[in-house]
Amino acid sequence: MGEHVLVQHPSSETVSADEFRAAFRNHPAGVAVITADAGDGPVALTATSVFSVSIAPPLLVFSISELSSSTPTIRRADTVVVHLLGADQLDIAKLGATSGIDRFADTTIWKRLPTGEPYFPAAHAWIRGRVVNKMEAGGSTVVAVQALETYAPEAGDPSADAATAHPLVYHNRTWHRLDENSKIQ
Amino acid sequence: MGEHVLVQHPSSETVSADEFRAAFRNHPAGVAVITADAGDGPVALTATSVFSVSIAPPLLVFSISELSSSTPTIRRADTVVVHLLGADQLDIAKLGATSGIDRFADTTIWKRLPTGEPYFPAAHAWIRGRVVNKMEAGGSTVVAVQALETYAPEAGDPSADAATAHPLVYHNRTWHRLDENSKIQ
Repeated sequence: MGEHVLVQHPSSETVSADEFRAAFRNHPAGVAVITADAGDGPVALTATSVFSVSIAPPLLVFSISELSSSTPTIRRADTVVVHLLGADQLDIAKLGATSGIDRFADTTIWKRLPTGEPYFPAAHAWIRGRVVNKMEAGGSTVVAVQALETYAPEAGDPSADAATAHPLVYHNRTWHRLDENSKIQ
Repeated sequence: MGEHVLVQHPSSETVSADEFRAAFRNHPAGVAVITADAGDGPVALTATSVFSVSIAPPLLVFSISELSSSTPTIRRADTVVVHLLGADQLDIAKLGATSGIDRFADTTIWKRLPTGEPYFPAAHAWIRGRVVNKMEAGGSTVVAVQALETYAPEAGDPSADAATAHPLVYHNRTWHRLDENSKIQ
């Protein structure tokens, strides 16, 4: 296990930003890109905070930081598209994670759904949904979304299979790909 | 990309449980075990829904399903311990994910903190925190926790390094381990 650091603050009962980051440094996550358009143009944001919370009704949550330029639009939007990415779509993940660029400059990689939302057709799977609840959490907002529409590989399709789908994982500023070799036997 | 299925319900605007599961099938996640004791004995629950949402104040969220036997205790608890697991701690992940067993039968693998909460000292990192907010989401509750205390590898320790820490990832009912080989160059 090596040397660990126990950080305790019995009096003030709080931990510093660095201490909190150190605790989460080893926590990996799947990668999603969230798109929306609240009437003032499309936005896209890469997030490692998406998870499914309920099957009936079908609900997912994600968090958005007030520091992101896409956050004001996502906070105002009634509907969003949550793209769940495979390792083959690292370019989309990087696009939504790069500051100071026009994420919609390349018009060959995004389209609009019939319902109007911008989306990336190359994503492994995506879910269009309605924002149904929000919870403030420090400098971020946790958003709950009810699924209205899904797009995913059909069961039996090779890309639906865990062994060949190659999910994308983010961990401590590096990108990883899951496959047969990463599996614990 | 193979064959994909587009599921649309323009009239009812909802998707089925199977459709929602299919969309999330390829979405991996880091693995945590959450412990608490609200006065009626220790509980432990494996969760793939933990993420950091704010650095200042230091906040994380996770979701708990009403279907889990540990949920009533975690909903009542003022404080919880969130353990972030490495691949070397797969035994703890499996323990918290197995139904119908006494998860605290083996008294060699858990202890109590001076503040009273049950915890697993072998976890790669853990965060003790106070429940500060909750959001209902279908059959689940999203819980926001403010960190009071952290335990993590010291910077410079080999187990703090991404290349040697070997994070544990859950994906479509399989366990994976991240290392140099899973990294996308």
